[in-house]
Amino acid sequence: MPSRVQQKIVIVGGVAGGMSAATRARRLDETSFISVFEKGPYVSYANCGIPYALGKVIKDDDALILQTPAAFKDRFNIDVHVNTEVVGIDRENHTIDVRSVGTDETYQVPYDKLILSQGAEPFRPPIEGVDLPHVFTLQTIPDLKEVELFLSKHEVKHVAVIGGGFIGLEAVENLRHLGLEVSIIECAPHVVPPIDIDIAEPLHTELRHNQVLLHLNAKAQRIEIGRVVLADGYEVPADLVLLVAGVRARTSLAREAGLKIGKTGVTVNSGMQTSDPDIYAVGDMVETEHRVAGHPLVLALAGPANRQGRLAADHIYKRAVSYRGNVGVGICKVFDLTVAITGLSIRELRQMGQDPLWVTVHPPDHAGYYPGAHPITLKVAFERYTGRLLGAQAIGTTGVDKRIDVLSTAMQAGMTIFDLEHLELAYAPPYGSAKDPVNMAGFVGSNVLRGDTEIIHAEELNTEELEEAQLVDVRSPGEFSRGHVPFAVNVPVNHLRDSVTTLDKGRRIIVYCQVGYRGYLAYRILKQNGFDVVNLDGGYKAIVQGGFTALQTPSETK
Amino acid sequence: MPSRVQQKIVIVGGVAGGMSAATRARRLDETSFISVFEKGPYVSYANCGIPYALGKVIKDDDALILQTPAAFKDRFNIDVHVNTEVVGIDRENHTIDVRSVGTDETYQVPYDKLILSQGAEPFRPPIEGVDLPHVFTLQTIPDLKEVELFLSKHEVKHVAVIGGGFIGLEAVENLRHLGLEVSIIECAPHVVPPIDIDIAEPLHTELRHNQVLLHLNAKAQRIEIGRVVLADGYEVPADLVLLVAGVRARTSLAREAGLKIGKTGVTVNSGMQTSDPDIYAVGDMVETEHRVAGHPLVLALAGPANRQGRLAADHIYKRAVSYRGNVGVGICKVFDLTVAITGLSIRELRQMGQDPLWVTVHPPDHAGYYPGAHPITLKVAFERYTGRLLGAQAIGTTGVDKRIDVLSTAMQAGMTIFDLEHLELAYAPPYGSAKDPVNMAGFVGSNVLRGDTEIIHAEELNTEELEEAQLVDVRSPGEFSRGHVPFAVNVPVNHLRDSVTTLDKGRRIIVYCQVGYRGYLAYRILKQNGFDVVNLDGGYKAIVQGGFTALQTPSETK
Repeated sequence: MPSRVQQKIVIVGGVAGGMSAATRARRLDETSFISVFEKGPYVSYANCGIPYALGKVIKDDDALILQTPAAFKDRFNIDVHVNTEVVGIDRENHTIDVRSVGTDETYQVPYDKLILSQGAEPFRPPIEGVDLPHVFTLQTIPDLKEVELFLSKHEVKHVAVIGGGFIGLEAVENLRHLGLEVSIIECAPHVVPPIDIDIAEPLHTELRHNQVLLHLNAKAQRIEIGRVVLADGYEVPADLVLLVAGVRARTSLAREAGLKIGKTGVTVNSGMQTSDPDIYAVGDMVETEHRVAGHPLVLALAGPANRQGRLAADHIYKRAVSYRGNVGVGICKVFDLTVAITGLSIRELRQMGQDPLWVTVHPPDHAGYYPGAHPITLKVAFERYTGRLLGAQAIGTTGVDKRIDVLSTAMQAGMTIFDLEHLELAYAPPYGSAKDPVNMAGFVGSNVLRGDTEIIHAEELNTEELEEAQLVDVRSPGEFSRGHVPFAVNVPVNHLRDSVTTLDKGRRIIVYCQVGYRGYLAYRILKQNGFDVVNLDGGYKAIVQGGFTALQTPSETK
Repeated sequence: MPSRVQQKIVIVGGVAGGMSAATRARRLDETSFISVFEKGPYVSYANCGIPYALGKVIKDDDALILQTPAAFKDRFNIDVHVNTEVVGIDRENHTIDVRSVGTDETYQVPYDKLILSQGAEPFRPPIEGVDLPHVFTLQTIPDLKEVELFLSKHEVKHVAVIGGGFIGLEAVENLRHLGLEVSIIECAPHVVPPIDIDIAEPLHTELRHNQVLLHLNAKAQRIEIGRVVLADGYEVPADLVLLVAGVRARTSLAREAGLKIGKTGVTVNSGMQTSDPDIYAVGDMVETEHRVAGHPLVLALAGPANRQGRLAADHIYKRAVSYRGNVGVGICKVFDLTVAITGLSIRELRQMGQDPLWVTVHPPDHAGYYPGAHPITLKVAFERYTGRLLGAQAIGTTGVDKRIDVLSTAMQAGMTIFDLEHLELAYAPPYGSAKDPVNMAGFVGSNVLRGDTEIIHAEELNTEELEEAQLVDVRSPGEFSRGHVPFAVNVPVNHLRDSVTTLDKGRRIIVYCQVGYRGYLAYRILKQNGFDVVNLDGGYKAIVQGGFTALQTPSETK
């Protein structure tokens, strides 16, 4: 039934959260007046596809435009105003000040309920030359068109990408598709700073394999025509510079209106209401509870933005809803690899003062005997004692997205590492294994928590430890000869029972194999024979793949 | 520390559950005597890979043999006896009677704890000719070798596969890879009887597209050389016949020993103990609690078998463990399609006396604007009122396994259809959408449970209903002209607001579009305008893909 009061719902921002709110509001109420004001020329476009349109993987830029203002009018009876900026909010009188881009014409629009969905803006590092004409961001369709125009008008051979996060890496891959030479300038020690370095390291290999030049721990000091000068004086050639160094919540309108702002974005309650109950805010501009971190955080992700928009509309129409917060799930294709994370990394957990446990496994994405199997490296973090899942990271060629989605679901359900042992997942040889990688992580992690095995991580292996302990490599002599940890002796696991007498019971043993399984078997044998022993998590592969060069002895070196 | 009592652990059956139990037992205790008796010539082989070895997708049959008895001795100090059948259990004296296959030599072996892992045997339908020399099963490596030998020695042109379940379909695909003509004889109305017919129907199309001859609702009456004669007299040409008509738990040894047997397999408690606490049973021969059905069932699946074996060993060593039961997850590649199920189908739920709700969505596996997107049909069942997830079925080209694994995890965590709305999954254009298919199912299902939409399923549309109700097709005129439901009028959703006056408020409206979304928008418009309306779940696509031919009017028919 039509409601008695015809509400005026005004939405600021016409992408993701904003349009989700607008269309949900219409579905809930045919009679409301619903208007959307969008500063840019497009609404409801697929900004996640922009790097791929740049690389012509998506052939036509127009494929990114999912809906037009006319389509919203026709289908939803929603008034969409593009090229129209909202410049002020008069909370007392329930009006917004609106300015047409270009004409500077300003007018007022009344609202009963206002939904802010202004997103986040690309961070522009305060460096010299950042406003030069060959420096671009890559967030919107106009950004894309500007880059394309520049590429068509100038002879661009080399591009410098400032920022090695997900968007930066997507841009890099697509620039390579265009045949351009590409450098990444990343201030962190590794690309994709939210993940841990051991999971990021294979990305470096993949990027170099694709002729991408990597500048890590690198600070862009100055941009000039033709180059980016780093803090150490190194000159990175750059006919074009892309700034993809993260985003910042767009909070200025909310701030000027006196709405409460948190550390990283606009503060909202679980109904997506700001400190003014008639003003909602959704998407990349708000802080929502991070369910693992336990405090509010901005997450620039399309999925949460869409759900928040929908939920704000629900709340306006007095539906029983509550936003649950996020766990933070990210995924990125980097040439032939996929990297993904859910929850928090070990580094982030430690920064928050936590002392998490974690395990690393490298099982194939599907049954090894079926063609096309590739290993996935899967790292799962969990709380000491309780086993509560805190995060998971994975890297591999195929099947990474599936495992992260399963682990993300498990984490959101409040599952523990013990639950992963029991998890029943679809198995046929083309798709998985009877013991799925997720189960494997569960087995190993549960063994650790139950005390059936003690593990040590590659990052904990310092020179002192190596010299004091007995390092036992339980792989085959062939594997050992192709590279091993300094000071290690080779006792293949199958000979270990016969060789225990040759080992020193007075010294701790660090045992390792290639991926961790034989090391675990060796641990069990040695432990039951009275040794003090630990197994290297993720095996020698974790050392090599994780970039722990000091822990590698080249072949045949003693 | 070595335990004081050196236990004698004897395991009957050397595949999946048996070997998992044996190796876990060794890891837990170095001192036990562990023996495995396997009737066949191989242990620890990948029986799930056998259809693919037949089709030479797995090039070398030996790739299926994961471990040898010698390897178990070397690595685990486990004594594996192949070609050795256990023919009796003397529970009082704690011994088993063992017979060497071939020699008929019999001897006794003592045990402290006995673990039965005998699996299931292929069901041999009691039909004339079932023992003819060209009739084979396809469960073991010797089965595989016999089929391969027959194919090499005889001129086989046509194969009849009796049974259209997962293994049957895998066999069919692989026989087609060999260039053979293949017929399926399935007694149910559709292949893969555990799934619903609307999800199975696209498999029929795919099989026919690959020149597979389908005999549904068909009973093999008699097998002769060169043919299988059906109950209706039809003769299916068959130079070779494969029997893949399901399996039956191997319970005879347990039964003769007086162990408690359930309706479908050996009865065990949550520690995998049979009615004799010193005898455990695991894998395809036991009944375990089906967590959705709420009663014990045999599940012939490798994952649960492995976990049960591990758990039996844990229980023997007094670990705090408890088997949680299964939800039943199955997946199968059928040429270019993947079909998968978790939990129960609508048909099965109804057979159990339940009255489930369900929704059907057809979203793309990843963002539609990124190359290579293909639709997935996803059907999610949930409990009326509570929304508790009861099952999910999916079919599509890619991404089916991921969605079923996510839904299986959600179901095992006790999640509801409402939880699926909130689920945070990894999104980047190559992998998914901001609103994942799982979220979409959650949105639609939650709308149904909250009363925001009322749906009707294609199977509920009978002729009476069609004649009494107003059928409104809200797709475009172009879509409408390519085929629609009889008696439907075409009112594109964008014109619906202007056309409400042309519709009859006194008659119920059944609205539909192509996949359900525009129908939902139309539902909301009509409902708020005071109409009695329902939306067709899954849209016209559900009618066409589900094989509801009576509900289809060919193009331009009035």
